[in-house]
Amino acid sequence: MTQEREDYRILHEAALRDYLAGLPDLKTLLGGDPAHWAITEVGDGNLNLVFIVKGTNGGIAVKQALPYVRLVGESWPLPLSRAHYEYLALSKQAELASGLVPALLHHNEALALTVMELLEPHIIMRKGLVAGTQYPGFVDDITTFMARTLFFTSDLALSAAEKKEGIAAFAGNHALCKITEDLIFTDPYRIAEQNRWTAPYLDGLAAELRDDMDLHVAISRLKLKFMASPEALLHGDLHTGSIMVTESQTRVIDPEFAFYGPMGFDVGAVLANLLMAYFASAGHERAPGERAAFEAWVLQTVETVWSEFARKFLELWRAQGTGDAYPISLFAGEKGAARLEAERQAYMQRLFTETVGFAAAKIIRRIFGLAHNIDFELIEDARKRAVSEARAVRLARGMMVEAAAFRVIADVTGAARKLKDWQPELSG
Amino acid sequence: MTQEREDYRILHEAALRDYLAGLPDLKTLLGGDPAHWAITEVGDGNLNLVFIVKGTNGGIAVKQALPYVRLVGESWPLPLSRAHYEYLALSKQAELASGLVPALLHHNEALALTVMELLEPHIIMRKGLVAGTQYPGFVDDITTFMARTLFFTSDLALSAAEKKEGIAAFAGNHALCKITEDLIFTDPYRIAEQNRWTAPYLDGLAAELRDDMDLHVAISRLKLKFMASPEALLHGDLHTGSIMVTESQTRVIDPEFAFYGPMGFDVGAVLANLLMAYFASAGHERAPGERAAFEAWVLQTVETVWSEFARKFLELWRAQGTGDAYPISLFAGEKGAARLEAERQAYMQRLFTETVGFAAAKIIRRIFGLAHNIDFELIEDARKRAVSEARAVRLARGMMVEAAAFRVIADVTGAARKLKDWQPELSG
Repeated sequence: MTQEREDYRILHEAALRDYLAGLPDLKTLLGGDPAHWAITEVGDGNLNLVFIVKGTNGGIAVKQALPYVRLVGESWPLPLSRAHYEYLALSKQAELASGLVPALLHHNEALALTVMELLEPHIIMRKGLVAGTQYPGFVDDITTFMARTLFFTSDLALSAAEKKEGIAAFAGNHALCKITEDLIFTDPYRIAEQNRWTAPYLDGLAAELRDDMDLHVAISRLKLKFMASPEALLHGDLHTGSIMVTESQTRVIDPEFAFYGPMGFDVGAVLANLLMAYFASAGHERAPGERAAFEAWVLQTVETVWSEFARKFLELWRAQGTGDAYPISLFAGEKGAARLEAERQAYMQRLFTETVGFAAAKIIRRIFGLAHNIDFELIEDARKRAVSEARAVRLARGMMVEAAAFRVIADVTGAARKLKDWQPELSG
Repeated sequence: MTQEREDYRILHEAALRDYLAGLPDLKTLLGGDPAHWAITEVGDGNLNLVFIVKGTNGGIAVKQALPYVRLVGESWPLPLSRAHYEYLALSKQAELASGLVPALLHHNEALALTVMELLEPHIIMRKGLVAGTQYPGFVDDITTFMARTLFFTSDLALSAAEKKEGIAAFAGNHALCKITEDLIFTDPYRIAEQNRWTAPYLDGLAAELRDDMDLHVAISRLKLKFMASPEALLHGDLHTGSIMVTESQTRVIDPEFAFYGPMGFDVGAVLANLLMAYFASAGHERAPGERAAFEAWVLQTVETVWSEFARKFLELWRAQGTGDAYPISLFAGEKGAARLEAERQAYMQRLFTETVGFAAAKIIRRIFGLAHNIDFELIEDARKRAVSEARAVRLARGMMVEAAAFRVIADVTGAARKLKDWQPELSG
């Protein structure tokens, strides 16, 4: 895990070609003369270098961590060790949710470099959502991914000793957690250099958020939960930019933010990004009502992502709940079984409330924080964009401050639907 | 941390004498001819060897971990690494609550051996409580110990990175946590070989507990919280047998169960053991009312342990709350300060509820689990003992299942007072 920094070097095209040519398995997989491999840098994320390499037989994706935040530059250093945690998480996810993450082909700890299966013709889901594409297989895939990765790394499935080992294995990834703690749970609610929003239209709303103490208490409770509730191994950054899709396939990528945290953070990330796609949709239509079917699909997807996740998670708990939490020996007989089942439902209700809160946090950070998303950013008309964003923020504010008032997922989609045509008062 | 087991050997008297004679500082401290040092094995705990060594100048206490549970024997192996965690915790406690733990004089990792200041004329507090002794300095000392060790290892005082490092440093102590998970949070509520209780008088009550599904849900929630809520570095075994006292001094010893867990577990342990001393007191009186002043002092101590702990903890938070949780920048101005103060009170209320639940768990395990305590055990008349125990269990059952109904600490002491003369129906 500790990296000899002297062995690290950034592999740009030529060096990468030489490096890969020296790995017999990958050389065979790619095929042909290494000199003729096509190498393209495609990293559009915020942190790393990503190359696609293609030979005569096949292609691979190569991801290398940089010792700083790519989006910002060398002034914001970031430890290379994140590549270690990403590799660790990806290995675990491959074991638990096989077929739903890219296959691992090679990892070099010192170079902070990982080679994976090339996902083709998959695209980043967020791009598809902006285009108004529906993904009929998505719900089943993402809920399997979440239910299995979260359940099997939780106290419901593991012994306390295994769980503690897992927590310790990821404890070193705190620099990545810190990014989340600052950018999601703190900065959007105060004056911070890196904040930005659709000015001037949202100036007033930004000021309101900075002055809203109920919201500050709510986000602080969520932050504390994020920091001190290691319920399961999270992906940690499960937005629609971390998901690659075709109409029939789903692959979850980029788990470098992985750590043991509260399950609701992952589930909430998926719901939040679908809700943002919903509110952004109006900004992308070229004719009124053009995207109605897509919008209906998105809201239905919000509902089924939660309901299918909950169903699968509960099913795993009932069938494989052999962890140290809720030992079956304390719930013997028919009476015990019924009481345990009621407690499972209560557990899911608590998880739902937290999911609602975390989803809200993910929405607000994308509208007032450093990192925005193309759902909104690609709405060229700034006023239109601000309208979409203000609707999302209004929903999010309610979800965060009164999370428990949302009893079922239909309460969330119902509230979203009611805001679809709401006309916010804008500044400027 | 990893121990070379081949370097480990149990140091009985002669070997210990040679070992200590080879350590110049300790040799000087003890003074005189090593051959004349008085070495006495005094370990009355359940796990380790403890020697008192006295020379012409002074004395020391030597604690060595055995590779098994002393109380049970070699059939129950227990890792020597617990001596490492105890040393780590003791060092941290000495830093945070100086003067309230024994001074560390020497530690040998391979031998799982620690040498500490000899506490003289201190006695184990539990023995004093059985004798009916009041300790006027206890509340101030123990609340300082708890407020400082818990606050300064929490997210309220630490950065998230420091906190994660702390969690990881203690994650390996899972074998000791497992003892707690089994003996406190599981076994007393099911048929388990090691359970015992004052039979036949409590047979019926034991059966009731095993059939009480509300109680099983409550203890399971507490267990999950114990396993997955690393709020602060706990002592982990903070009963009155882990506290040595004179009338004016308090020293907390034996933190080998230390790990990052929920704060309410430590605070609840202190309250639980005081409450047991209260209920046991009737069994120790030789004349009616003889111990009334002591009993009043115990209940008042229960109240002030909580109130002083809460006051000191809040004071630290207000003055030194520079951790990553509840960042002050989100609570600027008068309005922000007022809202944060209200949130601090809400935080303490949540902590109080959990403390009440954990206290209940600590009571029940001492009456139906493997390890009992002399508060009750020294009541020779088994029927009398059972009456005291049944009163304590009745209180504990309410505290666990309806923890939130106890809004303030006076609700706990009030309920205890009401049970003082309650006559339970006994079996047999």
